[in-house]
Amino acid sequence: MLARVLRRSLGDAGSRSSRCGYASKMTHTDEETGEARMVSVTTKAETHRRAQAQGRIVLSKEAFAVLEANELHTAKGNALVVAQIAGIQAAKTTSQLIPLCHPLMLGLIDVRLALNKATSSVDCKTTVETKGSTGVEMEALTATSVALLTVYDMCKAIDKHMVMQDIRVIEKQGGKSGDWQWAPHQ
Amino acid sequence: MLARVLRRSLGDAGSRSSRCGYASKMTHTDEETGEARMVSVTTKAETHRRAQAQGRIVLSKEAFAVLEANELHTAKGNALVVAQIAGIQAAKTTSQLIPLCHPLMLGLIDVRLALNKATSSVDCKTTVETKGSTGVEMEALTATSVALLTVYDMCKAIDKHMVMQDIRVIEKQGGKSGDWQWAPHQ
Amino acid sequence: MLARVLRRSLGDAGSRSSRCGYASKMTHTDEETGEARMVSVTTKAETHRRAQAQGRIVLSKEAFAVLEANELHTAKGNALVVAQIAGIQAAKTTSQLIPLCHPLMLGLIDVRLALNKATSSVDCKTTVETKGSTGVEMEALTATSVALLTVYDMCKAIDKHMVMQDIRVIEKQGGKSGDWQWAPHQ
Amino acid sequence: MLARVLRRSLGDAGSRSSRCGYASKMTHTDEETGEARMVSVTTKAETHRRAQAQGRIVLSKEAFAVLEANELHTAKGNALVVAQIAGIQAAKTTSQLIPLCHPLMLGLIDVRLALNKATSSVDCKTTVETKGSTGVEMEALTATSVALLTVYDMCKAIDKHMVMQDIRVIEKQGGKSGDWQWAPHQ
Amino acid sequence: MLARVLRRSLGDAGSRSSRCGYASKMTHTDEETGEARMVSVTTKAETHRRAQAQGRIVLSKEAFAVLEANELHTAKGNALVVAQIAGIQAAKTTSQLIPLCHPLMLGLIDVRLALNKATSSVDCKTTVETKGSTGVEMEALTATSVALLTVYDMCKAIDKHMVMQDIRVIEKQGGKSGDWQWAPHQ
Amino acid sequence: MLARVLRRSLGDAGSRSSRCGYASKMTHTDEETGEARMVSVTTKAETHRRAQAQGRIVLSKEAFAVLEANELHTAKGNALVVAQIAGIQAAKTTSQLIPLCHPLMLGLIDVRLALNKATSSVDCKTTVETKGSTGVEMEALTATSVALLTVYDMCKAIDKHMVMQDIRVIEKQGGKSGDWQWAPHQ
Repeated sequence: MLARVLRRSLGDAGSRSSRCGYASKMTHTDEETGEARMVSVTTKAETHRRAQAQGRIVLSKEAFAVLEANELHTAKGNALVVAQIAGIQAAKTTSQLIPLCHPLMLGLIDVRLALNKATSSVDCKTTVETKGSTGVEMEALTATSVALLTVYDMCKAIDKHMVMQDIRVIEKQGGKSGDWQWAPHQ
Repeated sequence: MLARVLRRSLGDAGSRSSRCGYASKMTHTDEETGEARMVSVTTKAETHRRAQAQGRIVLSKEAFAVLEANELHTAKGNALVVAQIAGIQAAKTTSQLIPLCHPLMLGLIDVRLALNKATSSVDCKTTVETKGSTGVEMEALTATSVALLTVYDMCKAIDKHMVMQDIRVIEKQGGKSGDWQWAPHQ
Repeated sequence: MLARVLRRSLGDAGSRSSRCGYASKMTHTDEETGEARMVSVTTKAETHRRAQAQGRIVLSKEAFAVLEANELHTAKGNALVVAQIAGIQAAKTTSQLIPLCHPLMLGLIDVRLALNKATSSVDCKTTVETKGSTGVEMEALTATSVALLTVYDMCKAIDKHMVMQDIRVIEKQGGKSGDWQWAPHQ
Repeated sequence: MLARVLRRSLGDAGSRSSRCGYASKMTHTDEETGEARMVSVTTKAETHRRAQAQGRIVLSKEAFAVLEANELHTAKGNALVVAQIAGIQAAKTTSQLIPLCHPLMLGLIDVRLALNKATSSVDCKTTVETKGSTGVEMEALTATSVALLTVYDMCKAIDKHMVMQDIRVIEKQGGKSGDWQWAPHQ
Repeated sequence: MLARVLRRSLGDAGSRSSRCGYASKMTHTDEETGEARMVSVTTKAETHRRAQAQGRIVLSKEAFAVLEANELHTAKGNALVVAQIAGIQAAKTTSQLIPLCHPLMLGLIDVRLALNKATSSVDCKTTVETKGSTGVEMEALTATSVALLTVYDMCKAIDKHMVMQDIRVIEKQGGKSGDWQWAPHQ
Repeated sequence: MLARVLRRSLGDAGSRSSRCGYASKMTHTDEETGEARMVSVTTKAETHRRAQAQGRIVLSKEAFAVLEANELHTAKGNALVVAQIAGIQAAKTTSQLIPLCHPLMLGLIDVRLALNKATSSVDCKTTVETKGSTGVEMEALTATSVALLTVYDMCKAIDKHMVMQDIRVIEKQGGKSGDWQWAPHQ
């Protein structure tokens, strides 16, 4: 076993116990070796689960005006529609992007983008739902991130200084841990 | 043509000229219709190109301590290695994730993650190089985003309040626009 | 919300009501904004579902003869076998190709190709089955289309004039809408 | 060698020569065995290449009216924009869908969809360009097919009787065979 | 039907019966034609299933020493961690790699790699679990193969003579056929 | 930098020098930290490169007879054709499967499978060619492995005891290291 080889080479039984104290909380690493492990969900019940994530990309005044003009004049909002589709597609590839993420059959992926003049940003909010045995926060976060990256791609000829900010899970329902809402770190 | 249908339905020649003023800068939308378009790079010369992006994910003190412990005791740093590999793999799938992005043969993808105690965060910096006809900033940004998402996935059992911040391109070399470095929006 | 931004910019409450009349039938667009939306299937029951699609690619006499010869002499029918495998694989990637399509676990994908001398064509018929919460007509259509595209690829050195025709769903079982069979538009 | 096994089992030297007459034209099958083979392009020169494909999906009057309404009232044309993005993305995955297709770096993918009242259809025309060693007709056809499949997906709640028609390559430039335009089979 | 065409061209009713005797056991080929077919699992019950596979890659003494040194000194074991992640990701793509394999939602993928001094090899053992309607031996084998290929990739600058050996399923639980353990062919 | 963090935590300058002696040969790990790194190929010349790999899967007498019967009677060899196509497709996804592998435009992928009665096995030999800046041995090995896995999948209802053996690169041409042929480890 790799675990054994590593432990032997470290010869470090003392520190191990304290590490385990932590590692038992970090579900994606093996308690003994700290190695990455997928969590088994085979015996977990399938329940309705839902997660919401959000984030934003801050644009220069010029880039914001261009997006707004594209929006108002043609009312087609294409840059945002392309970003929305990219986000939806990305949610479906989450388990291929995030190594220890389980594949899941998603029942809903709802990606919404809006221009926010106050912050000169495009804001994205994503809701994902499933009936499955693990949560869908990674899918919501991945969709949000890729939608924002797509906005960057479409505007980068005008503004290379854009910054993506505040990408986080804001709400979660279902599953063992029950309902949950984001609050800042203490 | 869809373009014509749309314009006719809008009957809005006046606003069109001002829109075009902007749209000619927004390379991914058609000047006339505002529709999303891929930019042709068929006749652009292949030159050496390089881009760097960075970003960070802010953790609670507890989650940070767990990552640090995993690092120090086993020196395996697996959470970070998994994130690094995820970032590298994501860079290669950029054109599948970002709709109007051209496929590119990447010559180098270098994703580095480090624990930053001062900000209680995992910081990620990615360098991508190619010999090709378009830049690689989207690849560098995508790798960075997915590496940070992977850190979220691995730590989410301890801390759901993590926030991804300041994801941006910091440097670019090669191509028509020459060398470039990030500076804040004025 | 983007919806609100768009509606405001249109200032067009009158036309909205008539649009909604239609949009409520077009399940993939938001009733209020006309924006693309994925339909939620999280609470739909999992039932046995089945769909059949078909289509054909019309070949020149020469290309048809070559395919037939390959068939008769070696009895390997490789061009058709390659197309069959391509169709099966494509069915599994449907949700990655069609943006608002839900991922589904397919229980059966049966792609059959046959030479049809009367029409100088390769005819393809695909059956897909699942136990799931949405129908599988997109999977059957996608498999059929990709199988025919593969025939094009294999014969294009002899005949570039091939045309794909009559690709459609011919039958559907299961789900809320019950059994259904194709009939021409009135 | 499989070739030998097969030939032996057929014991059919006579028919072989005539088959070869054909097979030498069918570049994707081995001359001797009729087996599927990828064509080597390693030593072919990289030249500018371009291909155009088109096709259409015929809708019921009702479905056509819904698409048109979505188009005219919101001027967002989302169903068509989603189909356009799906087509662009599909072009990039062509070599993964079509087994004997070479991967290629595409320089341009331009997918255009338009409502055609005369034929009650959505018409799609795709242009693909590359600087590479093989043609891009498969990419143009694949983008067109997937764009039309996406229209089917978005309208199928109103009309299951839609039929995809006349999907074909209409024009090709560059490469050894030079410029070419579609004409009907004689 | 292709089946009929083929049979007719073979004119070989006599041999057919004996072939069918076999083919009925080979579940992935059509009984009549020998053509490849996906097995339908739509009506099979979803049960807990588990499979284990293993294999090894034999290294030169020099390459083994390098891997061991990387292991012992930094205790990071990166070559093995990268291979482990590659194996986990590959398990999730099994149905895209193996044409007649059904997609499955995997509940656990556990890939372990260890240095084996006695055989100068890296040994890999993979366990996969699902609650589904077909077995997971292909997923376990695919993960094992790709993990070993990754070791080859990382060590090939030192040793091109590496050989992958003894890749096989060693254990299977669940499903109609019940528990099973590998034993050599008689 | 992670490198620094790790080194500091190990406090192990002495052992570092010996590790570096090795690591400089192992091109996919950072010399200082042992961390996985992609090798930069941006400035390497594009030359013609070619690699051959082979391997085999050993079957029970019964499974071998079934495959042979399928081969001889229908002369369709479908199990082998499916495996061949799977191998070709897998070669194109190599850089997605092997984390530190560069994407490459492959000019030729030739996968051949043959029944070998002497060893009761299916033997696979793959040739891959490219004009590129890195070698193609990983593509040849991946195609071979996936072709053999596909044989396993198609025969597993008859024989679960199959074993894959001797998968290795046998020949390599082009690139800095020149021509090379496999020989056993000394």
